[in-house]
Amino acid sequence: MLIYLAGPDVFLPDAVEIGRRKQAICARHGLIGLYPLDAEFDAAAPGLSRAIFRSNEAMMSKAQAIIANLTPFRGPSADAGTVYELGFMAGCGKLCLGYCNDPLPYTQRVAARGEVTARDGVLHDAHGHVVEDFGLADNLMIAHALDLHGCALITPQSSPDDPWHDLAAFEACVKLAAARLPPAKLLR
Amino acid sequence: MLIYLAGPDVFLPDAVEIGRRKQAICARHGLIGLYPLDAEFDAAAPGLSRAIFRSNEAMMSKAQAIIANLTPFRGPSADAGTVYELGFMAGCGKLCLGYCNDPLPYTQRVAARGEVTARDGVLHDAHGHVVEDFGLADNLMIAHALDLHGCALITPQSSPDDPWHDLAAFEACVKLAAARLPPAKLLR
Repeated sequence: MLIYLAGPDVFLPDAVEIGRRKQAICARHGLIGLYPLDAEFDAAAPGLSRAIFRSNEAMMSKAQAIIANLTPFRGPSADAGTVYELGFMAGCGKLCLGYCNDPLPYTQRVAARGEVTARDGVLHDAHGHVVEDFGLADNLMIAHALDLHGCALITPQSSPDDPWHDLAAFEACVKLAAARLPPAKLLR
Repeated sequence: MLIYLAGPDVFLPDAVEIGRRKQAICARHGLIGLYPLDAEFDAAAPGLSRAIFRSNEAMMSKAQAIIANLTPFRGPSADAGTVYELGFMAGCGKLCLGYCNDPLPYTQRVAARGEVTARDGVLHDAHGHVVEDFGLADNLMIAHALDLHGCALITPQSSPDDPWHDLAAFEACVKLAAARLPPAKLLR
């Protein structure tokens, strides 16, 4: 069972180490984690970003499932690249899992970043745009993609001390994946 | 030719009217635009957000292409729900098109929302997270999904006076889609 490990983890200063920790957790549960930074690139070569895209897409095509880190990144929603990958895997009919180390609902995340006002029972942000108010953690497409194409979003009861390095919610996803998917090879 | 019209347009105060304008542009080019707000829901019914998800997914499954409004929404990246839908359509092997009414590259969008500093030739945001610096408009997964699964992102030379209502870049996408896809039925 190959699982694609998506998330803005790749943008952290210790991105490689986080990938290793996630892969070790996968291995403990009989799964193999595929992490974008496993691939090697010539950073000076032209077309680097396209090579990274193709590499990530090839990993997703090999994988049977995705575990997406959907912790808010540079705004109230999850990282855009990660969300794209979640959609891609759902479109491919793969098993979708995800976690979020921010337990706040979306409306509160938006409110924490700017004024939110109610008019006629509908919430609006400072630009006058409607704020989705379904009690979900993020845009409904993300929340229900997990519900309906895999397992409901995993969130901690309260925000971990270090949301970018606490892997308890990630490990909960790995356990769910292991229960749903047979190991690639049974060794005796 | 059915095209799914994705975007945070659905969160604008005049969301229904924008959908009608987009559908009229599609019709002028021989295409049919499917807009999320075409569906009708009982707002008081339980499970409303899930019903919206299922409706959007059904529209995407019927469509042969997506035109995504990828103008930044509540942060430096595109709307999360829209990005999910772009990924879903790419995963389904459908034709992917998109536009963005903010012509700035991603690094400048991040810099406009907080301090960005260079260390050892790599850009970091105020949280110490790496900022992708490929000269692209958004996360590389979004930019190259369009390049490789459809048509390159359409952006105006300069930001329109009203980025949420200017549909010139949208119409450019419609023309590209019409050139790539046969009409559903040829009428003489």
